[in-house]
Amino acid sequence: MPHQTYAACIEACNGCATACHHCAASCLKEPDVQMMARCIALDMDCAAACQFAAAAMARGSEHAKAICALCAGICETCGEECARHRHEHCQACAKACRDCAAACRAMAH
Amino acid sequence: MPHQTYAACIEACNGCATACHHCAASCLKEPDVQMMARCIALDMDCAAACQFAAAAMARGSEHAKAICALCAGICETCGEECARHRHEHCQACAKACRDCAAACRAMAH
Amino acid sequence: MPHQTYAACIEACNGCATACHHCAASCLKEPDVQMMARCIALDMDCAAACQFAAAAMARGSEHAKAICALCAGICETCGEECARHRHEHCQACAKACRDCAAACRAMAH
Amino acid sequence: MPHQTYAACIEACNGCATACHHCAASCLKEPDVQMMARCIALDMDCAAACQFAAAAMARGSEHAKAICALCAGICETCGEECARHRHEHCQACAKACRDCAAACRAMAH
Repeated sequence: MPHQTYAACIEACNGCATACHHCAASCLKEPDVQMMARCIALDMDCAAACQFAAAAMARGSEHAKAICALCAGICETCGEECARHRHEHCQACAKACRDCAAACRAMAH
Repeated sequence: MPHQTYAACIEACNGCATACHHCAASCLKEPDVQMMARCIALDMDCAAACQFAAAAMARGSEHAKAICALCAGICETCGEECARHRHEHCQACAKACRDCAAACRAMAH
Repeated sequence: MPHQTYAACIEACNGCATACHHCAASCLKEPDVQMMARCIALDMDCAAACQFAAAAMARGSEHAKAICALCAGICETCGEECARHRHEHCQACAKACRDCAAACRAMAH
Repeated sequence: MPHQTYAACIEACNGCATACHHCAASCLKEPDVQMMARCIALDMDCAAACQFAAAAMARGSEHAKAICALCAGICETCGEECARHRHEHCQACAKACRDCAAACRAMAH
């Protein structure tokens, strides 16, 4: 099954998309939401990139490597921003982003 | 964390989306692809529904129940079609659809 | 072409998705972002629903009516929330949501 | 409004996504569906890429240029494959892909 080659990276992408969607929704409820604006915006990008990459890998797409390369870069940017905030959902999202970036970088090579 | 209420259902949706994307791509490579046309079409609907539902639950959306109710119905239709085909990817997809339909039905109540 | 039946509704969905994504990103930059939290959350739901519905109609999906019915409800909720805010992007989004809800309701019947 | 800078490219992406979804669904109904397998697979990639790019531009995303660059490449590959088939939906999709690739290339610079 072609998508089993991708199984670990698909799982990392799904985990990262979930963490990003949750982080965005949780940031919106924080008292310091004004400071979380870029975090929320990057969460939206990163969740969309991860869902796109997971779907492409599951289809065994001929574009999977290029999509994973883009996804890795978006995860890295999002993870750096999330890591700057002390909220638990931001720290959890930063870790999911780093894990997903590493998995996508490995896939892209 | 609001999205932990949804954790099992999100996982079922992600698993079903992956199975549907893989089934669609694999059906396209079968010698009897002509007979797989409805299976492929339903796989596309179901993958999109599952990704939509997983994202909504991860955001703790106020529409999560309604989205899960729709997703359950689409998973049921897709699972019934997949179950009619002997290909391993169709049988695996049928199971993922049934599991996801059950998880989404429970969530929708 | 089956998707021409849906052409006007697809266009309304695409317009609404764009308005919702823009409204969400613009709300994040407003000084009163704290008051815009539900608007942003509903924008995310509505954008996703509209992209899902547009894709289903373009594929001539057998689930297109059920998806449009759900999309109409989400557009109505989002449009009501947007209409409560004086920002230009909220008012433009409220109109796009109302137009899309009407198009999706007509399609769902 | 930041997304007005992107208005023409968003429209090209939405048009291309619709054409790709329609082409995929129509190819599945062709008597020579076996020969259309790569066209269908690329339609799925291209539709997803275009929806991702349109959403990113509508949000004024800091990743919009990188996403448009990837989208342009996927549109070009899909357009070349579609152009090889005489079906009307393939020819229409080839044109939409070429237009979208050009708009995304311009945006990415």
